[in-house]
Amino acid sequence: MRVSRRGTVDPFIVMDVIKAAQDAEDAGKNIIHMEVGQPGTAAPKAARLALEKAMRDNPLGYSVTLGLTELRARIAKLYDEWYGIDLDPERVVVTPGSSGGFLLAFSSLFDAGDRVGIGMPGYPSYRQILKAMSLEPVLLETSENARFQPVPQDLDGQELDGLLVASPANPSGTMLDKAELAALMEACRSKGAAFISDEIYHGLEYERPSVSALEIADDAYVVNSFSKYFSMTGWRVGWMVVPEDHVRRVERIAQHLFICASHASQIAALAAMDCEEELEANLDTYAVNRRLMLEGLPKAGFGRIAPPDGGFYVYADVSHLTDDSLKLARDLLEHAGVAVTPGHDFDPRRGKGTLRFSYAAATDDIREGLRRLKDFMTERTATAG
Amino acid sequence: MRVSRRGTVDPFIVMDVIKAAQDAEDAGKNIIHMEVGQPGTAAPKAARLALEKAMRDNPLGYSVTLGLTELRARIAKLYDEWYGIDLDPERVVVTPGSSGGFLLAFSSLFDAGDRVGIGMPGYPSYRQILKAMSLEPVLLETSENARFQPVPQDLDGQELDGLLVASPANPSGTMLDKAELAALMEACRSKGAAFISDEIYHGLEYERPSVSALEIADDAYVVNSFSKYFSMTGWRVGWMVVPEDHVRRVERIAQHLFICASHASQIAALAAMDCEEELEANLDTYAVNRRLMLEGLPKAGFGRIAPPDGGFYVYADVSHLTDDSLKLARDLLEHAGVAVTPGHDFDPRRGKGTLRFSYAAATDDIREGLRRLKDFMTERTATAG
Repeated sequence: MRVSRRGTVDPFIVMDVIKAAQDAEDAGKNIIHMEVGQPGTAAPKAARLALEKAMRDNPLGYSVTLGLTELRARIAKLYDEWYGIDLDPERVVVTPGSSGGFLLAFSSLFDAGDRVGIGMPGYPSYRQILKAMSLEPVLLETSENARFQPVPQDLDGQELDGLLVASPANPSGTMLDKAELAALMEACRSKGAAFISDEIYHGLEYERPSVSALEIADDAYVVNSFSKYFSMTGWRVGWMVVPEDHVRRVERIAQHLFICASHASQIAALAAMDCEEELEANLDTYAVNRRLMLEGLPKAGFGRIAPPDGGFYVYADVSHLTDDSLKLARDLLEHAGVAVTPGHDFDPRRGKGTLRFSYAAATDDIREGLRRLKDFMTERTATAG
Repeated sequence: MRVSRRGTVDPFIVMDVIKAAQDAEDAGKNIIHMEVGQPGTAAPKAARLALEKAMRDNPLGYSVTLGLTELRARIAKLYDEWYGIDLDPERVVVTPGSSGGFLLAFSSLFDAGDRVGIGMPGYPSYRQILKAMSLEPVLLETSENARFQPVPQDLDGQELDGLLVASPANPSGTMLDKAELAALMEACRSKGAAFISDEIYHGLEYERPSVSALEIADDAYVVNSFSKYFSMTGWRVGWMVVPEDHVRRVERIAQHLFICASHASQIAALAAMDCEEELEANLDTYAVNRRLMLEGLPKAGFGRIAPPDGGFYVYADVSHLTDDSLKLARDLLEHAGVAVTPGHDFDPRRGKGTLRFSYAAATDDIREGLRRLKDFMTERTATAG
């Protein structure tokens, strides 16, 4: 049977790591998980209780396409709470995860063959979704000097139709400050390129608050999700904020592409937004884990890291240790019992010299993982020397 | 801010009808709903209980992309129960509703500019999803003689890259028998066109069982969902069955496009599959409603209907009554208090002379709706005469 060219996308290498870690566990080995990009915690308790109640009272059929009115209003209020922005709830579009947000944004903004810039390293699905939609991902190689984020000069000569940035970023954890974000938005505006801001890691920051593109201007698509700060990955619910004159357009596309996000997940998400105590306790755990990582990783030989401003990842340059991070990751899994992600997913060219460590696990696991990494790497250096 | 051409899709007209009906109800009017394409019933009770339990024991993070192993196995077993087919669970891909299935299928099979045939009348989102993915919907006008389904000759000269059929169909409710389905599949095979079978209304049939494309051959993408027979529209969970050598390919695309279907919805769907008693009771209701419709609609003047073999719709030719079904639908809502869908969504050319009546509502509502339709239409004829 025929297949398309655009559907021939790369696999997520992290999925193979997860599978290998699972196989090791099935074989009786204890594995510390520093590969997964999701909280180990469940959705907040009140969120689950709200859904239990709704399942008794409500048939939970299709919601309207743009999402439950109360949820859109509550999301708009979050923009006041987090950024001091007065946001019209009409501009909020509830989506099936941020994945659904990207599909909607790319459909609304770009035609086949259009060129969309993304920073390298970056979230691998950006370039694969673009490809699957017949768009051309333009890989902008970022520098350590620019905190692994794109800068306006990167756009020169690229003839971009759009630019997608993430702050805090995955895998680097680095953030753009307000001036940097504003400069990128202005560069796009001046070139007629659409600006998409992936803000999925907002709420998970440790030094200073993240800046939303909406603090700067309204001519952007902002993508967010309940997966990370709100600890609801498996529920597949997120949102976008779009310019006022794009709402009806995005609604029409969403009517056909999705009909609506899971009604059950929307009910749970609405209740999750008022679980500040539980969510801040999760954040406290990440903060402790992050401190342990910043102390422990250099002791294990992983000292060349991007500044982990937010999210729950540390991205390490291991090019002084190996030119094959895939093999190093395999060795760490097999001999140290620690699952980590090699950089190939995030940066096709330079990823062979990088690793991503997630610290979304429980603190005891992080402690044990760091101990194992140090022991293994000390042994490895001794053997090599 | 820039917009794409492909994202300029048509709205669902039924959404405007739903909104108008809601407005009328908000203004205190009683409205009978024959416009909605979803069961009025909730997910089966055991499905909701299974999720309540899972929410206590399980963090419900991402599932693996292809779906929960138990759910894929249970879906494979359904093919034995319904069609006597021995299906390898590895070929089952759990999707975010059938909508997610179409996005996946179109990405895997077609490149920008490819031509995909769909029968008219048909589900409106087919052509809008195709457009949003830079594919060309080729509208095949079907005939009453062919039960409003495509026939192999319709493919001649069309240079199709794929064909998508639905049986039972929306809006017509008509089914393809095994010979008809096989002939379409063979026509596609001989022309190198991919074959996609939308089987979302399977399980809802009244005269004879539906035929799955998989009873005929394995070189097809079969799309299905928990929305209709399993009464879980708002949960956004469905599945595809793809050829064995397409599984890994579809998995990779799905990893990036969706990550996974809602874990919570998958848990509920798994339990729903063993709720035969409750689901068959729903089906009994539809069967009673259908009988009432077949008796009552002709008495109201709507006697020119497609044979409603399955699903829960009756599609009526009203061209002898009006050349503006949009206006007739508005009049029925305003003066009879019955919401119905004008045909424009389903057939851009001939829809001005058709209406779709859904009988998914409660039986008492169907009775009352038919009474109102008859009274209004009798009055209307008297006034005209």
